Amino acid sequence: MQFRAAILGLCLAASAAWGDPQKAAQLRDAALRDDTAWNVLESLTTEVGPRPAGTPAAAQARDWGVAKLTALGFTNVHVEAFPKRAWLRDAEAAEIVGPFAHRLALLGLGNSVSTPPAGITAQVVVFDSLAALKAAPQSCCVGKIVLVNQPMTRTQGGDGYGNAVRARSAAPEASLRGAVAYLVRSISTSTARAPHTGGVQPWKPGQRAIPAAALGVPDADLIAHMAARGPVTVHLSLQSHVVDATAWTVSGDISGNEPAAGAIVIGGHLDSWDPGTGAIDDASGIAITVAAAKLMAATPHRRTIRVVMWGSEETGGSGAAYLAAHKDELGSIVIAGESDVGADNVYGLQLPEGAWNAPDIAPLESVLAPLKVMAMRAPPGEGGSDLEAIHDAGVPVFALRQDASRYFDYHHSQDDTLAIVDPVQLRQNVAAWAATLSILADTNFDFRKGQK
Amino acid sequence: MQFRAAILGLCLAASAAWGDPQKAAQLRDAALRDDTAWNVLESLTTEVGPRPAGTPAAAQARDWGVAKLTALGFTNVHVEAFPKRAWLRDAEAAEIVGPFAHRLALLGLGNSVSTPPAGITAQVVVFDSLAALKAAPQSCCVGKIVLVNQPMTRTQGGDGYGNAVRARSAAPEASLRGAVAYLVRSISTSTARAPHTGGVQPWKPGQRAIPAAALGVPDADLIAHMAARGPVTVHLSLQSHVVDATAWTVSGDISGNEPAAGAIVIGGHLDSWDPGTGAIDDASGIAITVAAAKLMAATPHRRTIRVVMWGSEETGGSGAAYLAAHKDELGSIVIAGESDVGADNVYGLQLPEGAWNAPDIAPLESVLAPLKVMAMRAPPGEGGSDLEAIHDAGVPVFALRQDASRYFDYHHSQDDTLAIVDPVQLRQNVAAWAATLSILADTNFDFRKGQK
Repeated sequence: MQFRAAILGLCLAASAAWGDPQKAAQLRDAALRDDTAWNVLESLTTEVGPRPAGTPAAAQARDWGVAKLTALGFTNVHVEAFPKRAWLRDAEAAEIVGPFAHRLALLGLGNSVSTPPAGITAQVVVFDSLAALKAAPQSCCVGKIVLVNQPMTRTQGGDGYGNAVRARSAAPEASLRGAVAYLVRSISTSTARAPHTGGVQPWKPGQRAIPAAALGVPDADLIAHMAARGPVTVHLSLQSHVVDATAWTVSGDISGNEPAAGAIVIGGHLDSWDPGTGAIDDASGIAITVAAAKLMAATPHRRTIRVVMWGSEETGGSGAAYLAAHKDELGSIVIAGESDVGADNVYGLQLPEGAWNAPDIAPLESVLAPLKVMAMRAPPGEGGSDLEAIHDAGVPVFALRQDASRYFDYHHSQDDTLAIVDPVQLRQNVAAWAATLSILADTNFDFRKGQK
Repeated sequence: MQFRAAILGLCLAASAAWGDPQKAAQLRDAALRDDTAWNVLESLTTEVGPRPAGTPAAAQARDWGVAKLTALGFTNVHVEAFPKRAWLRDAEAAEIVGPFAHRLALLGLGNSVSTPPAGITAQVVVFDSLAALKAAPQSCCVGKIVLVNQPMTRTQGGDGYGNAVRARSAAPEASLRGAVAYLVRSISTSTARAPHTGGVQPWKPGQRAIPAAALGVPDADLIAHMAARGPVTVHLSLQSHVVDATAWTVSGDISGNEPAAGAIVIGGHLDSWDPGTGAIDDASGIAITVAAAKLMAATPHRRTIRVVMWGSEETGGSGAAYLAAHKDELGSIVIAGESDVGADNVYGLQLPEGAWNAPDIAPLESVLAPLKVMAMRAPPGEGGSDLEAIHDAGVPVFALRQDASRYFDYHHSQDDTLAIVDPVQLRQNVAAWAATLSILADTNFDFRKGQK
């Protein structure tokens, strides 16, 4: 890698002063030897662990973030508070009562209502897909528990999730058909029994709210196997409560040397779901972006790199809060990016329209090539869910696309821990981010010019 | 496969009357189209689920076994009861108290003693290997909880387990050094959080009994990460009880047409651990051997195939009980084999010394080759833990070696469910067993002649 970098440096030494590929290549190679990301990731998962917004652990994570950015030399380290109505899990249990008794592994879905304290006991109606539920008559499920047991397709780009996750939010379809509760096969590519939770929209006025939970993949299959023999009865108890709490987004800068050139906003989200330690969702995103920004401190660059540790991604709110707090300064955000698909290799970089043709950005393709990161011509979309609000308000975004092939084996489950992170791939992420930041921090290209 | 079989049949048509490779190849190909094994496996895991010896579910499994063998046309279907002193799990919980509070995923080890009802709170001493614990001075661990955090190596043959599992039984080493409890990293090749239980020897007179449990792999790592920062305190509560119960081995025959030629004993074990549904440990072994024996019913053969569903493999006893009940008839058991390493492909057949040179057995190598099952010259060992007693008493054994590469990701954990079984590999197992049984049921070779 270093040999190739030297060659590349020679070849590209004559290119533009802004967006220097030689500097980008040096940062890339330094990242491949750097353990900052691993150390940040290990620290957050070990010292804080699970940290849903609205819990005491979220406040610990806030303090951790401030201390970590300060220790790493970031400036302008500060906390931005916003109100957070938080759904919090209490006791949950379920079992098949008959024909064959089995304990069930399940997790309530965020924003689910509770069952009565004694729980609900009812027969289950199994649908093999969300489409089958939607096609069922209104009379299908009166007094029943609906289970949608639709498997998820494994894909590199993660679009299998986008397809499958609609079933997680389908409790209203069951409610419309008279169901007393809604169960969904975990939105997961794994065969492990650990259930995968996730948030759903709060019930709307006029809707009949019913409890909703995710079953472990083998448990959903087990009910389906029994249902092929005859009626299956399940007992279900889901308890939760909602609190009016505060959430916090933590931010810190690596300053550029040209304040008028604006800032680049990057980061991951500080909150996590509760079953695991949130290593890949999203301590790794924080670790990767912190480490890449830290590397930038060693070289001169025009723009400030601002790392934002978003305070409430899983149940929403941090993007909107940031927009509200910074709406008058959005013009100074040149471009933004978020890392929130784990810690496996980056395979592509998506930039706003026209950017790959800019003379001081085009050489980035060669800098990323040794990392097996390709220049993707497809647009970056919203760039990450915490960026959606500012992106909709006009801030351009970029996306370093990560291999999501195994991400959904672990996501939102107890299996999201440090044990599943590959340190070599983690460094590759930092290298891709550092090289990209190096170019974006110096380029003269106007990312807004391709915007609609 | 069928085209190859036809060629093979032509080439081998002139070989010995006993041990007919053409018949073996036909059985092999029939097995690859047969769903009996899947149906048996689905039935046991769905209708009974977890079934430790000494529980009501073990009695359900016994009744299931009798009904299933009878329905499939086996004769001489009967139950053999034996006394079973059974260790049964009650409530268990553990958490890291400090420096950073975390719930821990753990399972008590079979035969562990209970903690006091209020549990044990103590500092943890972490050892990276069993060897490091054994090398530690007697004073190392007085009043402490010992954790051996030794990772397991993934191997095809499963010998990584033999190496790692010694740490599961090392509570006496901790006790000798004054420890108040013993924790072991799950004996697992997975990164999943679900702990893997397992049995250990009861404490011997004169030993100071201490509670022992297995931690989820990420949880063991988490303690190690914290211990690198300073003292770690864990609270642990393990409750269990022991009952004097009855266990049952279920047996049934596919008769041969030459009673004096003796019987072949095959099978898997009916009991399982409690966290999962025991799909690969060992409903699959029962399914594979039942299905292979059932196929044998369709063709004439000399020897009776006797399927034994062993009643207490996980915590021992069924092999010894069988020996005691059948010690006067061992001479009529020509050879025995057990399937107990899951449902992934068979990659080799091990036979007693000299057998591969027998003219009516040698052609089996060609029959197995299309399945990618090789003729292994290494001896078969004990042939399976339920066979150890009768093997020690002189019964020859064979071993169809299964790919164990992913077996220990799931073994003894809640992840051992039907969801991890590949139906295609399951059928390959049945094909290898059916072809092998076809030859063994007819051969004139004396498997005892190579015995010591």
